[in-house]
Amino acid sequence: MKQDQQTLTVALGSRSYTIAIGSGLLETLGTTLQPLLPGRQVAIVSNSTVAPLYLDRVEKNLQDSGFTTLPIILPDGEIYKDWTHLQTIFDQLIAARYERKATLLALGGGVVGDMTGYAAASFLRGVNYVQVPTTLLAQVDSSVGGKTGINHPLGKNLIGAFYQPKLVLIDTDTLATLPERQQRAGLAEVIKYGLLWDSDFFAYLEAQRPAILRLEQEPLNQLIQRSCAIKAAIVGNDEREAEQGQRALLNLGHTFGHAIETLTGYEQLLHGEAVAIGMVMAAELSEQLQLCPVGTVARTRQLLLAYGLPVSAPAFPVEHYLEAMARDKKVQDGTLRLVILTRIGSAELRGGLPMEAIRQAIVCHLQPQD
Amino acid sequence: MKQDQQTLTVALGSRSYTIAIGSGLLETLGTTLQPLLPGRQVAIVSNSTVAPLYLDRVEKNLQDSGFTTLPIILPDGEIYKDWTHLQTIFDQLIAARYERKATLLALGGGVVGDMTGYAAASFLRGVNYVQVPTTLLAQVDSSVGGKTGINHPLGKNLIGAFYQPKLVLIDTDTLATLPERQQRAGLAEVIKYGLLWDSDFFAYLEAQRPAILRLEQEPLNQLIQRSCAIKAAIVGNDEREAEQGQRALLNLGHTFGHAIETLTGYEQLLHGEAVAIGMVMAAELSEQLQLCPVGTVARTRQLLLAYGLPVSAPAFPVEHYLEAMARDKKVQDGTLRLVILTRIGSAELRGGLPMEAIRQAIVCHLQPQD
Repeated sequence: MKQDQQTLTVALGSRSYTIAIGSGLLETLGTTLQPLLPGRQVAIVSNSTVAPLYLDRVEKNLQDSGFTTLPIILPDGEIYKDWTHLQTIFDQLIAARYERKATLLALGGGVVGDMTGYAAASFLRGVNYVQVPTTLLAQVDSSVGGKTGINHPLGKNLIGAFYQPKLVLIDTDTLATLPERQQRAGLAEVIKYGLLWDSDFFAYLEAQRPAILRLEQEPLNQLIQRSCAIKAAIVGNDEREAEQGQRALLNLGHTFGHAIETLTGYEQLLHGEAVAIGMVMAAELSEQLQLCPVGTVARTRQLLLAYGLPVSAPAFPVEHYLEAMARDKKVQDGTLRLVILTRIGSAELRGGLPMEAIRQAIVCHLQPQD
Repeated sequence: MKQDQQTLTVALGSRSYTIAIGSGLLETLGTTLQPLLPGRQVAIVSNSTVAPLYLDRVEKNLQDSGFTTLPIILPDGEIYKDWTHLQTIFDQLIAARYERKATLLALGGGVVGDMTGYAAASFLRGVNYVQVPTTLLAQVDSSVGGKTGINHPLGKNLIGAFYQPKLVLIDTDTLATLPERQQRAGLAEVIKYGLLWDSDFFAYLEAQRPAILRLEQEPLNQLIQRSCAIKAAIVGNDEREAEQGQRALLNLGHTFGHAIETLTGYEQLLHGEAVAIGMVMAAELSEQLQLCPVGTVARTRQLLLAYGLPVSAPAFPVEHYLEAMARDKKVQDGTLRLVILTRIGSAELRGGLPMEAIRQAIVCHLQPQD
């Protein structure tokens, strides 16, 4: 069953780790973890949607390999990615006498992964953690690279840590149970890699759309591997998002997207959906400033639409969007720095962009008011 | 005024930093920081006791060097070292649009330093911070080494990060305004360095007691420098308290001490006072197990008493102490690991100690019940 397993490495010196990708990997989770973890305690952090699907299997598998397990189940949703729910993780770890050699295992999507990672970074000043992402978005993006954190009422991911996992284990079979809307949201981040890094991959996503939307194993594995390989390469060069580093490019569409999520209270849109709209705005900004060829917006928008993703933002006043963007982590010396496209497959971080152009890029892609 | 400034280095590769010790250093804070900090925003985190003494001067000094300042004042006390007050730091940073290049400056004692460090570790996944400790305890111990964190209702420092400052600036003039009880509490950590590392230093503290208690500049500078030098050497060898590393030795008396603090709700005793009692218990345990020469307890106890420190713990049932100790970070594979003395000036981390001996070490140094 493991003949089609692929492994990639995130090269970060003493913090390096493997990304394992393949079908059926959950069945051998315990034996995979045995040589990697110093202790026997494994807390499985999951949510109320994913736990009923996989928790029993994962617990049994770990116990068969000699681990003791502690399930910690959070409610499902970005609105719970807050201090209160982080605290419930700590409470349960302390009640169960979890020690420094313990491991936290994130079983779920991006919210579970981000919170578990930050809990691991902070509990007893740092314990090990392992990512077992079960959504496409988490598999191709949030589980790799060590960005962890929680939201603040005033903005997304404002509190957190760079903290690397010991392993990312991607069992592609878990995608079979993923609701279609979430699959599509994950594809937004996949398209992002094509847009900012790899025009061949972008063309592949255009050409293979029918097979990908049918969740055929071969193109699905391909796109997960390619996405993780791009992310691993970028993170390996720039772990902590240095000022002139490549990692900031991964924020393509995200400053717009975070503002959309903040204004909509994290409830109306999935993260990938907000990023899809944000990428259209970023392309618009780039094209209006003549930083990329004419037609870039159209081709970007078309591919996102073809994958069933939204491409225009809820009709809040544009000032509200600008206000939310001004609180973003990417602000420096009081001015916004945004990722712009120079063509399909290439991006740059730019500061000092004219505010009028940013405003215009948002206005162009707002939904008409009722 | 700066002719008697001493500098030490905490050698941690790219995370190395300087400890500057001397009289009048606050007067040149701005020019000292100018070459060290990438941005202009400096949030000064202090408390309601220290701020009235030094905040105006520090703000003006920083502003004269071109920094913008944001004072964040917390209530004074270990009981406020919690998530709620950490959150107020984040709220104010976000409201003031603080960016990734910003710096947090801790102006105060250990609580302010620990919280500011953890806030810096977590805000936007990590910004710079500087320690300006104004209590003896913070100057000789908590400001050096990058241990940051907050308390959990069930135990001290259970949530936090290893995160190093950019500079530790110790202006010894600040000790003149420190209440006598806090000076003595700080001396408990100074005595700890003698006990675990340096018998000559222990003898120096015995011999120089009258001059030290009169706060004479020369012996005070000496003991701060010697304490910081010992801590810097240990942290340089073992940043994250590895399993067999030296850093754990710094916890001499602390597992007992944390239990005392937990049971008394962090209000009755200062941290240094709890550690003083804890060191007597650790010496008692060592002597009862014949791991150190007979007389070690007596000499330890005598020096602590001579400095006006408490040497016996509040009369809670011993089971309550054992229960609180079992939740400590130093637990491994379910058994307590404690720092024991092998003589005055030398310590070891030991696991598998007989529970009866630990119980006995506590019972011997409980206050008689009324």
